Amino acid sequence: MLHFTKLADIANPQQLLQQALEIKQYPFEKPDLGKNKTLGLVFFNSSLRTRLSSQRAAQNLGLHTIVMNVSADAWQLEFEDGTVMNAGKAEHIREAAPVMAQYCDILGIRAFAGLSDREADYREEILTAFQQFSGVPVISLESATRHPLQSLADWVTIETNKKTERPKVVLTWAPHPRALPQAVGNSFAEWMQVADVDLTITHPPGYELDEVFSAGATIEYDPYKAYAGADFVYAKNWSSFQSYGQVLSQDARWMVDAEKMALTNEAFFMHCLPVRRNVVVADAVIDSPKSLVIEQAGNRTVSAQAVMQAILTH
Amino acid sequence: MLHFTKLADIANPQQLLQQALEIKQYPFEKPDLGKNKTLGLVFFNSSLRTRLSSQRAAQNLGLHTIVMNVSADAWQLEFEDGTVMNAGKAEHIREAAPVMAQYCDILGIRAFAGLSDREADYREEILTAFQQFSGVPVISLESATRHPLQSLADWVTIETNKKTERPKVVLTWAPHPRALPQAVGNSFAEWMQVADVDLTITHPPGYELDEVFSAGATIEYDPYKAYAGADFVYAKNWSSFQSYGQVLSQDARWMVDAEKMALTNEAFFMHCLPVRRNVVVADAVIDSPKSLVIEQAGNRTVSAQAVMQAILTH
Amino acid sequence: MLHFTKLADIANPQQLLQQALEIKQYPFEKPDLGKNKTLGLVFFNSSLRTRLSSQRAAQNLGLHTIVMNVSADAWQLEFEDGTVMNAGKAEHIREAAPVMAQYCDILGIRAFAGLSDREADYREEILTAFQQFSGVPVISLESATRHPLQSLADWVTIETNKKTERPKVVLTWAPHPRALPQAVGNSFAEWMQVADVDLTITHPPGYELDEVFSAGATIEYDPYKAYAGADFVYAKNWSSFQSYGQVLSQDARWMVDAEKMALTNEAFFMHCLPVRRNVVVADAVIDSPKSLVIEQAGNRTVSAQAVMQAILTH
Repeated sequence: MLHFTKLADIANPQQLLQQALEIKQYPFEKPDLGKNKTLGLVFFNSSLRTRLSSQRAAQNLGLHTIVMNVSADAWQLEFEDGTVMNAGKAEHIREAAPVMAQYCDILGIRAFAGLSDREADYREEILTAFQQFSGVPVISLESATRHPLQSLADWVTIETNKKTERPKVVLTWAPHPRALPQAVGNSFAEWMQVADVDLTITHPPGYELDEVFSAGATIEYDPYKAYAGADFVYAKNWSSFQSYGQVLSQDARWMVDAEKMALTNEAFFMHCLPVRRNVVVADAVIDSPKSLVIEQAGNRTVSAQAVMQAILTH
Repeated sequence: MLHFTKLADIANPQQLLQQALEIKQYPFEKPDLGKNKTLGLVFFNSSLRTRLSSQRAAQNLGLHTIVMNVSADAWQLEFEDGTVMNAGKAEHIREAAPVMAQYCDILGIRAFAGLSDREADYREEILTAFQQFSGVPVISLESATRHPLQSLADWVTIETNKKTERPKVVLTWAPHPRALPQAVGNSFAEWMQVADVDLTITHPPGYELDEVFSAGATIEYDPYKAYAGADFVYAKNWSSFQSYGQVLSQDARWMVDAEKMALTNEAFFMHCLPVRRNVVVADAVIDSPKSLVIEQAGNRTVSAQAVMQAILTH
Repeated sequence: MLHFTKLADIANPQQLLQQALEIKQYPFEKPDLGKNKTLGLVFFNSSLRTRLSSQRAAQNLGLHTIVMNVSADAWQLEFEDGTVMNAGKAEHIREAAPVMAQYCDILGIRAFAGLSDREADYREEILTAFQQFSGVPVISLESATRHPLQSLADWVTIETNKKTERPKVVLTWAPHPRALPQAVGNSFAEWMQVADVDLTITHPPGYELDEVFSAGATIEYDPYKAYAGADFVYAKNWSSFQSYGQVLSQDARWMVDAEKMALTNEAFFMHCLPVRRNVVVADAVIDSPKSLVIEQAGNRTVSAQAVMQAILTH
């Protein structure tokens, strides 16, 4: 069964990219592929882009969609085995997952990191449980440690806009008032491993990503050196992996601004959104013609549709 | 007009069962039956199975669905006549119900028992008001006293799995930390009256269901005697009907466990879900090959589709 | 680009009315007009009629719908320019609006008045921002100062039921326990400027609407004089425009009752709903055969469908 939760799920990432690029041009070519099938979108956390782009992608394929906001619409779920369920949680994942799969042919799951217990987060308890118990293909709509639909959309964005064969891509940490998961940073680094790019990751000391993800990338603690000659600057905040979930710095000098962008090779600016203006990125950068953030968001439909198409034709 | 709120709404229950069994085999035979029609699903309470299975059933029939979570999406409704509405409730059911019917050709209503006023609950104030004022067919998605879509799905499950002409079916009360409505127990007993089964209901003293529902069933206070020779064991908690809404017992010996299941005729285990593991049923029972809970949940689509089809062709 | 946020957006209101009247008779004539297109419904506030009628109208046109409850489903939005976004708001409208437009071909926006800052409300900050930044047609689902889908539905209702060429229409203020926006009153008065009616607005002193809207109408402070000879009595509460957002009166004598209705030319009763019975209108009036409130609500589908059709064929 084909799941889509991480790069390793995909046998041929280049092929998936090509299909995505084709869908970007011709989104309405397969209106009956999803006939008589239903996609369930299960949200344990808030969502705007993922919620809308997944529904739009499904509609383009003739796939029905059912949206569940777990906390608002249904019950609290139990994930531990062997517990005596006499407290707040009314349903066990061992029932909830296969039950949802009775009504949905594919399940999309959004479940963020809790950021208090690193091992639990990196075990991907919720996502893994849906894969283990549901019996249907599972699409990650951003899990504790990865956001692969975002990364595939990012890859499409880079492919579409690059001006050199092998562009220099800089993933830069940026400040943020709240502690955020590492998922987008992890996943972007992971997918760039198979893209034809030269990846540099820059952040203050203590913000190193898990090496599983950053393998192959250049780590550069001086943002000025990192930005030099960049073709793409991808900004994202994340909390510390080593001092797990901690905010070690809010140093405003890490904000993406016109001064640092001037060091680049007229780099495009990227961010997965939502973005805090004048904290993560200066107005002057995100409002410039080099900003790709809206196109990037539009490519979320493309990546979702490519993944659904791959699952439906598997 | 055909409503579906209780057994008595259905002129020929056997025929409905046969249609459901046919739909279970061939769910996609009538993709245009719901053309240009819309089903409104109105939730006064949380829902997972009902929410998803109703949408799936509607999709299979080409029927559009609109979902309303009353408390989250709209206003508080007033059900009393003649009141001066100068407090918290912004809309009267005398407007809300026919207004919804302007947009929806069928209305599904979920409204649980409050469990504080037995007469009010058993009057079925909310469900009845929608039947009285909306002017369109009303489907109960579980009301204060009944859950007929569940019961029809249960009947389909028993018919599909029974190994003897007239199986012994045991409805057993089981402990639960919270006070729950009698709806599932009532409704299961009611529908078993027209099924070709031998029904035994077992529970501690004080948990007798309203005799309207338990008529024709054997009442057995000793679970060991009840389980003896059973072909199906259907577990469900409910609060007391006589000491209305009270939790009279949390006696763990009423949990469905392997020891009591060993007294049966290799009985199947059934529960409507959500179920609290190791409170209502032991892991060993629900995880055994004799557990039908997932198939039972899957049959919720079947029963919903059979009912919608009956209404659309009435 | 065709937006639908106020009367002035429509070049030929009479033509739109005629199209609406035709849709009222034949709602299923254009089932493919919305093919491969998606309508996004974005709710900053609660909704019942608008939520359901917009979805129904879209379904009739083969237009997909995605519903977003902004506060429950996604993040808080920032509308101020140049702010350092290091507090509660996670996304700026400069991203959120064009991002939604990546997935939706038309955006419907509901955003009520805050009622504390008149200038801010009458600037229509949220609605205008979506028009400015999204790049797609925007439909008002009730904004701070107007509710044009309601007004078009009201116009259809009057056209369908009028018994004289140029009926006398009375818009009467009515008491209410809470402070409500002026949107429905403003918008009704605005649209009646192009309808072939004789409009009288009656309310206690201090409840004058902005003259932009009430221009051309007779203002009458004595409800008895206003009701005399009326063909339609349209009731609505609003808070003061001059003493902005204040409740200046809860005088129960302004309730629409049988006594005042007896002064009319057997007038029809209208209200946009939800309505508080025996506060805004007496049971005897809303329950009488002259009450049009349910038909009026049904015409919300008609007006929404006419507007979507106009946008899709623009």
